Amino acid sequence: MTTAEQMAEKQRSISVAEFFSKNRHLLGFDNPRKALLTTIKEAVDNALDACEEARILPEVIIEIIEMSSEKYRVIIEDNGPGIVKEQIPNIFARLLYGSKFHSLKMSRGQQGIGISAAVMYGQLTTGKPARIISKTGKDKTAHYMEVKIDTSSNMPQIVAHKETTWNKEHGTRIEIDLEAIYQKGPSSVDTYLKLTAISNPHVTIIYTNPKAEQIIFPRATDEMPAEAKEIKPHPYGVELGLLLQMAHQTKAKTMSNFLQQEFSRVSASVAKEILQRAGVLETAKPIDFSREAAEKTIKAITETKIMSPPTDCLSPIGAEPLKKGLKKEINAEFYCATTRPPAVYRGNPFIVECGLAYGGELEADSQAKVYRYANRVPLQYQQGACASSQAIIQTNFKSYGLQQSKSSLPVGPLAIVIHIASVWVPFTSESKEAIAHYDEIIKEMKLALQEAGRMLASYINKKKKLKGEMQKRGYIEKYIPKVSEALQQLLGLKPEERAKIEMELQKIMEDTRGELEEIAEENTDYDETFAKIGADETKEKEEGDEE
Amino acid sequence: MTTAEQMAEKQRSISVAEFFSKNRHLLGFDNPRKALLTTIKEAVDNALDACEEARILPEVIIEIIEMSSEKYRVIIEDNGPGIVKEQIPNIFARLLYGSKFHSLKMSRGQQGIGISAAVMYGQLTTGKPARIISKTGKDKTAHYMEVKIDTSSNMPQIVAHKETTWNKEHGTRIEIDLEAIYQKGPSSVDTYLKLTAISNPHVTIIYTNPKAEQIIFPRATDEMPAEAKEIKPHPYGVELGLLLQMAHQTKAKTMSNFLQQEFSRVSASVAKEILQRAGVLETAKPIDFSREAAEKTIKAITETKIMSPPTDCLSPIGAEPLKKGLKKEINAEFYCATTRPPAVYRGNPFIVECGLAYGGELEADSQAKVYRYANRVPLQYQQGACASSQAIIQTNFKSYGLQQSKSSLPVGPLAIVIHIASVWVPFTSESKEAIAHYDEIIKEMKLALQEAGRMLASYINKKKKLKGEMQKRGYIEKYIPKVSEALQQLLGLKPEERAKIEMELQKIMEDTRGELEEIAEENTDYDETFAKIGADETKEKEEGDEE
Repeated sequence: MTTAEQMAEKQRSISVAEFFSKNRHLLGFDNPRKALLTTIKEAVDNALDACEEARILPEVIIEIIEMSSEKYRVIIEDNGPGIVKEQIPNIFARLLYGSKFHSLKMSRGQQGIGISAAVMYGQLTTGKPARIISKTGKDKTAHYMEVKIDTSSNMPQIVAHKETTWNKEHGTRIEIDLEAIYQKGPSSVDTYLKLTAISNPHVTIIYTNPKAEQIIFPRATDEMPAEAKEIKPHPYGVELGLLLQMAHQTKAKTMSNFLQQEFSRVSASVAKEILQRAGVLETAKPIDFSREAAEKTIKAITETKIMSPPTDCLSPIGAEPLKKGLKKEINAEFYCATTRPPAVYRGNPFIVECGLAYGGELEADSQAKVYRYANRVPLQYQQGACASSQAIIQTNFKSYGLQQSKSSLPVGPLAIVIHIASVWVPFTSESKEAIAHYDEIIKEMKLALQEAGRMLASYINKKKKLKGEMQKRGYIEKYIPKVSEALQQLLGLKPEERAKIEMELQKIMEDTRGELEEIAEENTDYDETFAKIGADETKEKEEGDEE
Repeated sequence: MTTAEQMAEKQRSISVAEFFSKNRHLLGFDNPRKALLTTIKEAVDNALDACEEARILPEVIIEIIEMSSEKYRVIIEDNGPGIVKEQIPNIFARLLYGSKFHSLKMSRGQQGIGISAAVMYGQLTTGKPARIISKTGKDKTAHYMEVKIDTSSNMPQIVAHKETTWNKEHGTRIEIDLEAIYQKGPSSVDTYLKLTAISNPHVTIIYTNPKAEQIIFPRATDEMPAEAKEIKPHPYGVELGLLLQMAHQTKAKTMSNFLQQEFSRVSASVAKEILQRAGVLETAKPIDFSREAAEKTIKAITETKIMSPPTDCLSPIGAEPLKKGLKKEINAEFYCATTRPPAVYRGNPFIVECGLAYGGELEADSQAKVYRYANRVPLQYQQGACASSQAIIQTNFKSYGLQQSKSSLPVGPLAIVIHIASVWVPFTSESKEAIAHYDEIIKEMKLALQEAGRMLASYINKKKKLKGEMQKRGYIEKYIPKVSEALQQLLGLKPEERAKIEMELQKIMEDTRGELEEIAEENTDYDETFAKIGADETKEKEEGDEE
């Protein structure tokens, strides 16, 4: 029998690095194939975040080299602002270390885990340290470092460090050796980079795969996305425990100042309203704020009308660029996109965007293709577990002219893009593969899908209507000569009179065509389709004539 | 433009408590309903682990009290060995602290996160500390403590501490106030406790729900499950980085001793074989072990035949108790269960068990019900994301006489229990809701399903055959009087001769019945079914006669 005392001897703390090294599948290192994708994804995400924060148009160079069977070297180099020497070991060889966790603004990285996890995985599978070069400006020295992570303490170890020269003004380059498998396909690195190029038209990516094929995704625009601004938390999302902790840690001297300084959208009058409702003095000291007072304050907050949080912390892709991205990528007939107004879950602002592509080369008999993005990062795994899948399944696509079985994706020539931009995207795991099922998020996704779905429905309906009209007109056009001939015989017309009547009948037809074209012009995207439907009609007619 | 220096100022470490407080859905605190289940589950898991380690038959008392709208108090009390005073704050108010993470043996808890996360959630949503009483023996003092967790440092805070009296020999009692919602249903606390009772027949649970209804699950056996023994890692699962680290930290003086001491199933001769293959001297010092030598040693390990890891670190439920559990819970016609031999993934031994229940009150037209367990703990969320679902979908249930569409669960009156027992169950998230998709695990699950499936198929086939025979016999029995009558007329028999012939015909029928009963006796479970089929037949016949 083991006693409490014996058990106590074995109880000890677990370092977060030990935890994740044993639970590496939580970070996206389940298998060698996924490990390669995760490593590159984490490095590219960091590169893009750093460039955008420094307002530099990103140019990212990625290279994968096969060293031996299932051993690869990956190199990711950016033109970002660089990393100061002292922080290199922390950034690359310490889990839960970074600048984004405590900051409320949209960014790709948010946890301070990813790239250090890649370094740890490389070290565990090949025993080799990560090699980093970084330079923070034209006149600065470049630093070369080899770093490892001490898993039992989650602290970085510097294996080598020297000053070096680098013919680049500024930027960071990381080289990791790891056990991996390179394959093409929907969850591959190749696909990840292609999808990244769609959602980041301002980025240039130069990619060399292990087969030494170089693929370049040149930037489509020199315009940086709007800068995401950091915001304070919104009162609607705060919980009792957090409110207490914030009050006890604030530098504000009064409760009124505390609420105004630490939260978004709390003016002096809003603070007054909240505190009066809660029965707390505006001049009370935050340090004396009690649990009971906090409980009343939380209740008062929910009863007070407070403006929605500012949304300049978000930088959505935008409906037009999203549509362009879709057009570039998918050969379809019809494209539409929509950006929802900002919404809030647990105090965090977020925006949902949705794009649809329909027809063309998309397969008509299979389930809709879904492209998921979170803060411009493509999500390639765990589609079934994602809030976006729930939203799609719960949306009635039958009313938009598509087939759909219960609890399934719609069937038809359709591609769906869903993007969520948020200061804090809630993922179902640290590997950031699927979005957690928050009701507010699923609701916004459904609204976005409905907005886009209605545009699609109007297109599909018009297409059907047009097709019907075109068919009718085809018949009439075919009979105009016969009608004029009959009239000529019945009324004893002269040939020039018959020609005149024939022309007039044609004119009436064309006026009707004019009306149809007006319908078409409501959406310029229809142009090509019209040409297509026209062509189809002509073809059908011709085939009919041949019979 | 933000510079590298400005960015560096914002870079800092994130405490694991901050991380999980923001990512609480990773721990099973997505919403108030799930929070209640998770809190109770973590406390009960710990209670059962502690009792079993101390070889005490567990008796767990659970109480949920509604304090106000969406505020509940939960109390969990066990008769375990207790916790020494010094460790109470660490165990209950510090994430990643515990005794099970570094120990390779089967246990319910493994991460040292769960119960502290529940305390943290309670504190965040109600501002109240957790209250703990613990006593480690008859003559020991009981300690009462109120603890909170300092999220910014992940360290415990003792809010109150006093010695107290407790009329219990030993045990632990925890009381947490939290924001929660109590509901019944498949993911409820009620169901969790019922499912726990099935997989833990040696446990008594006394449960009072918020409606003040007391439900008692008395233990079904006084026999403790076999004690799980701690083992060393097996060489087959070790990776280069870990091997290097172990060599550099070992107390062994030679490489041969290092391999023998730190790994399972490495005898002096196995160590010799590995090291010779790797070209490493048996007497080399582990501290000098290089990356290159480690690479060769890893290769040598894979080429050396080493016995499978010992499996006394596992304590499976067993096929018979599993079948009994199913019978207790589900009213079906046929039950079977199987326990697979141990297998290994990434060096971790594991055993898969599978039970099936068929027919009876199970719904015939719906998908099979799936009950998932990991180390005797029921898994109630994320069935779709679980390796067991993959295994079921990939198993061809059509060949066992059930309906099944592609990529779907089988349809029919079927309940499936899958249990994985392992020294380290790989979950898809910290909330331990679904098992990660390791190929080795899915393979074993499929083999277990196939074994059980074949038993089911043989039952279903025999049942069909029996039904056919019974039907035939029914017809014949019906016609015996007519046949004898005809014979009487044809041959001019006396009434007693006719009666004799009738009896003989009956006798022939009964001999055939004898054969059928033999088939039935191959599996005693069929008995009741036979009675049932017989009854059905009689009924059908009677109905037929009435026509």
